[in-house]
Amino acid sequence: MKISVLTLFPEFFDSFTSTSIIKRAIEQERVTFECIDFRAYTKDKHNNVDDTICGGGAGMLLACQPIVDCLRAIKTDSSVVVMMSPQGETLQQAKVREMISYDHIILLCGHYEGFDERIRDYVDMEISIGDYVLTGGEVAALTLSDALIRLYDGVIAKQSHEDDSFENGLLEYPQYTRPIDFEGKKVPDVLLSGHHENIRQWRLKESLRKTYLRRKDLLVNRQLTKEESKFLIEIKNEDN
Amino acid sequence: MKISVLTLFPEFFDSFTSTSIIKRAIEQERVTFECIDFRAYTKDKHNNVDDTICGGGAGMLLACQPIVDCLRAIKTDSSVVVMMSPQGETLQQAKVREMISYDHIILLCGHYEGFDERIRDYVDMEISIGDYVLTGGEVAALTLSDALIRLYDGVIAKQSHEDDSFENGLLEYPQYTRPIDFEGKKVPDVLLSGHHENIRQWRLKESLRKTYLRRKDLLVNRQLTKEESKFLIEIKNEDN
Repeated sequence: MKISVLTLFPEFFDSFTSTSIIKRAIEQERVTFECIDFRAYTKDKHNNVDDTICGGGAGMLLACQPIVDCLRAIKTDSSVVVMMSPQGETLQQAKVREMISYDHIILLCGHYEGFDERIRDYVDMEISIGDYVLTGGEVAALTLSDALIRLYDGVIAKQSHEDDSFENGLLEYPQYTRPIDFEGKKVPDVLLSGHHENIRQWRLKESLRKTYLRRKDLLVNRQLTKEESKFLIEIKNEDN
Repeated sequence: MKISVLTLFPEFFDSFTSTSIIKRAIEQERVTFECIDFRAYTKDKHNNVDDTICGGGAGMLLACQPIVDCLRAIKTDSSVVVMMSPQGETLQQAKVREMISYDHIILLCGHYEGFDERIRDYVDMEISIGDYVLTGGEVAALTLSDALIRLYDGVIAKQSHEDDSFENGLLEYPQYTRPIDFEGKKVPDVLLSGHHENIRQWRLKESLRKTYLRRKDLLVNRQLTKEESKFLIEIKNEDN
């Protein structure tokens, strides 16, 4: 997988690419990550990438030419162009799973007041990481890149994904490590019992409980197994 | 406003604090941003912050003692402790607006398989930036910090916020800059007319249209003005 980030602030990604899991994935050549400053593609003699807004309004807007020329220069047949935009589809883990099948992902980062609307004709999809306002697309591109690289096959061991929140459609069950007693708060007995089947059942039930109490929306479209249905009834009774 | 990030990877934030708007806010002392490595608070002679999971499971879990001791050391009466967690409340711009009234925000970043459940007893709130899985809480803390610092009073000029997507509950209207004609794609005539009232109406209608086509959910609980209702009826008719 190759990720190309089109940005006016390539240095924003320096710490990201030199940290932990991401650094390892890049060093071991499982992932190629590059930042391209599209200011290099301006034909304007002052290297301007932005201009005032037609019809008036505060701030400046990213103009078509540098971005469109940059896209044309780096795109191949297997590239998917993604505009980071608050107007895009809200990112979900299912989308991350879909995207890791792409060979080349181009992430286009806006800044200032945003993009000239016509740039949208040159992108394949728009993605938003959530309903909040950021200083620019760089933070969104970094977040999406992190989710993509983490999930990408082989970057980290398979098993540790499976119980993560969202991967199986439920919030994660409560987890504990030593000491058994921390300031009077104790690890539940079942987790110390060594009884694997009881532990599995407890974890599934507590995972369902957390999801029921905090994120009922995640249960709405879920196909519950017989065991999950039974636990959910118990949880609802305990909740009353 | 002061933001303290508790993390095992303080260097992850280096590029963030040296870029653009955030850098300026910090230099001009409107915002204090610090990263604290809670590994410094371990009492373990090997400086371990994590341990195996009770009841079995892949990976390691962040233990209570270093984090709880670190929180106690830096907390004041005006601190709000926020755990970055996929199990938290999903971040929305309304929450960002609420949070910028806090004097001191402590962002707790997890890594590895997550936190010992008992750490939740020492935090005031849990926040998730979206329904996707990240390598650690650092990306989420960076995203939340960016949204907070951007909005915080005085960091950037007031007017440029008001038309942003989510700030007024609608997606932003299409914006254009020069040239008037780019590869045959033209700026809408109304925006070149100089007629302020027509421009205002066009923008409101197109903002409603984008929201209607892409994010109907944002319109569900909206108290529409008379003008907005009229435009929305027109949009629905045009859409059929």
